[in-house]
Amino acid sequence: MFPSHSHPLVTAPAETAILSMLLAVSPLSRVELARRTGLSSTAVTKAARPLLQGGYLHELPPERTAPGAGRPVNPLAVTPDREFFAGVKISADALYGTVCDLRARMRVTGRRRLTARDPRTVCALIAELVNELLDSEPEFRERTSRLGIAVSGDVDRDRGLVRYSVLPGWRDVPLAATVAAATGLAVSIENDVKALTVTEHWFGDGIGTEYFALVTIGAGIGSGLVVNGELVTGAYGVAGELGHICVDRAGPRCHCGSVGCVEAIASSSAILAGVRLAVADPDLAFPGAVRLARDGNPAARQVFAAAGRAIGTGIATLVSLLGPERVVVTGEGLDTFDLFGAQIEEAYTAHCFKAAAKCPLTLRPLPWEEWARGGAITAIQTLFP
Amino acid sequence: MFPSHSHPLVTAPAETAILSMLLAVSPLSRVELARRTGLSSTAVTKAARPLLQGGYLHELPPERTAPGAGRPVNPLAVTPDREFFAGVKISADALYGTVCDLRARMRVTGRRRLTARDPRTVCALIAELVNELLDSEPEFRERTSRLGIAVSGDVDRDRGLVRYSVLPGWRDVPLAATVAAATGLAVSIENDVKALTVTEHWFGDGIGTEYFALVTIGAGIGSGLVVNGELVTGAYGVAGELGHICVDRAGPRCHCGSVGCVEAIASSSAILAGVRLAVADPDLAFPGAVRLARDGNPAARQVFAAAGRAIGTGIATLVSLLGPERVVVTGEGLDTFDLFGAQIEEAYTAHCFKAAAKCPLTLRPLPWEEWARGGAITAIQTLFP
Ligand SMILES: [Zn+2]
Ligand SMILES: [Zn+2]
Repeated sequence: MFPSHSHPLVTAPAETAILSMLLAVSPLSRVELARRTGLSSTAVTKAARPLLQGGYLHELPPERTAPGAGRPVNPLAVTPDREFFAGVKISADALYGTVCDLRARMRVTGRRRLTARDPRTVCALIAELVNELLDSEPEFRERTSRLGIAVSGDVDRDRGLVRYSVLPGWRDVPLAATVAAATGLAVSIENDVKALTVTEHWFGDGIGTEYFALVTIGAGIGSGLVVNGELVTGAYGVAGELGHICVDRAGPRCHCGSVGCVEAIASSSAILAGVRLAVADPDLAFPGAVRLARDGNPAARQVFAAAGRAIGTGIATLVSLLGPERVVVTGEGLDTFDLFGAQIEEAYTAHCFKAAAKCPLTLRPLPWEEWARGGAITAIQTLFP
Repeated sequence: MFPSHSHPLVTAPAETAILSMLLAVSPLSRVELARRTGLSSTAVTKAARPLLQGGYLHELPPERTAPGAGRPVNPLAVTPDREFFAGVKISADALYGTVCDLRARMRVTGRRRLTARDPRTVCALIAELVNELLDSEPEFRERTSRLGIAVSGDVDRDRGLVRYSVLPGWRDVPLAATVAAATGLAVSIENDVKALTVTEHWFGDGIGTEYFALVTIGAGIGSGLVVNGELVTGAYGVAGELGHICVDRAGPRCHCGSVGCVEAIASSSAILAGVRLAVADPDLAFPGAVRLARDGNPAARQVFAAAGRAIGTGIATLVSLLGPERVVVTGEGLDTFDLFGAQIEEAYTAHCFKAAAKCPLTLRPLPWEEWARGGAITAIQTLFP
């Protein structure tokens, strides 16, 4: 039912090493490829052959890098248009879609507003959106067979199952199989934060880092972690749960059942609940809470400040444990950064352990389309075993 | 000055893969070795040759696993006595030493009480202890050229430098070079918790896990983390600082400068300070504080209980972020487990996020000699590039 898992393009370790290297950096000479992958030149040539024949790679004309530099080198390059990959992000109120090439460049994007959120409606809309995007260029339709979907919550990537998501009614939804049946594509799914973390690690601010973290703030608070160059997935499928670490034993109860979680203090709904209580207005909506704080209401400002301190303390914890080189902070919570950014940075600096504090926090507002690109990259990953 | 770094035994990736596999599991057939390392049989045979010639491996007689199972298989095994490795752990009041064989089995152990703790005295005593251990068997003296030292604090393994340790006067101590000069051995050094984590991962409760953590409690609180099978070292040399993550924003100030750290609440000195304050006895020593709590003094019991909650909350944070398969808890703090064990477990269960809570906490009292073995394993690691 999950054709994505049934046909990786490459299986041999040498082919895998070469293709993944070239997806990130292209072109590279065979000599350079050998050096970077630790393979012999013979092994590089042998491994490149099927990829050249399949059209995934092409050879550039030989070039000399410098006079007297020895034999001319024959760079190998990825052929970006050889295959395309569809990606979709399911958010609370819309679907975002894209078609990317082999180098993960977005070639087209689109969206669909969600009116109903039940799995059946959403799956049908995904098929509609993807078909529209694939029909925008004949070559997309011809050369796209893999779709990746990024969705928040507890995602069992191997089984193509959304075990749990905040979307109403989403429990044990066989998302991959359903959308595969509706589109005829091989469908893979991934937790949206993990997919975005891989995207930033391969192609964004995390390029070249062995230790990297992406933190999202907003309706939910989460993180994706890269250690020794690999995504952290956890032995039991749970990792990076920044939103649910305790930063205040005297803090409020969280929807997860625990107490003092970052998310219980700093998610947009926690902030809204706090401001409603502080100003005794149970009908206040989030934009109203933001307006109050921006207008200088001290009680509302306090609530945002406390949220900032919880986020900063949580990121400091992550950094003291993992030691990332860089942390990217993203998510719709950046929209209210003026109300808690100073507190995030202050608590982060106060609680980071020694040299770990060298790790800079980079604010990076990412449009929703980037999350859809994360889905496409999940699909690109299915080229590999 | 650090001969340890100048002569790894193996350099080629295939030899490295085979030797490290056989150190952990031995004997293995060539077929099984090929399967587990992903190498071809030819590559296994080629890579094994120099190791056989050097006496590090030997061939067992061919055996048939089952009638009709095909060609007889020729298992390869590590020759444990081919080389020995000295290991030392520097603790606050004593040195612990051992000599291990290639399979990391301790063949002899010894100790020296520390009367002075300045680097010069300690280095001289290390040399004395190691020489005594090597002289206990002629083969140890003949076939030991590598020594590993495990020490608490901020250790720059690559430069052989103890940047900082709690031992008085230990700042930027060139420990590896000094002991190398005094012993004629190639000396490598490592943070003691990291060394013990690798020991437990290779040979103890962490065998076979991809995600593993070791937590030490007592005078200091720390952790070593393994993610995707590799030790987490952090981009800036800081990682696993469980003692310095904030679990209580209203908690006491920590010696690291931050507030509410686990160590500020739950190290033995923090506990002692808490009990002294609670019972208004500024001269109380730690054994007295333990006695009071065991005798039922409610104020003293409260302090231990709060320490247990801080430790349990900290471990839950680590588990929700990293998702280890198993956590081993060790350290001299286990001696007072009766006074805070219930609170550790209760807080751990309360704060672990969802499926991450499947991760069991295993209590594992490890004698000091195991820490010295961690040093020896640091030396064994220098066989590899
Ligand atoms: Zn929670
Ligand atoms: Zn601290």
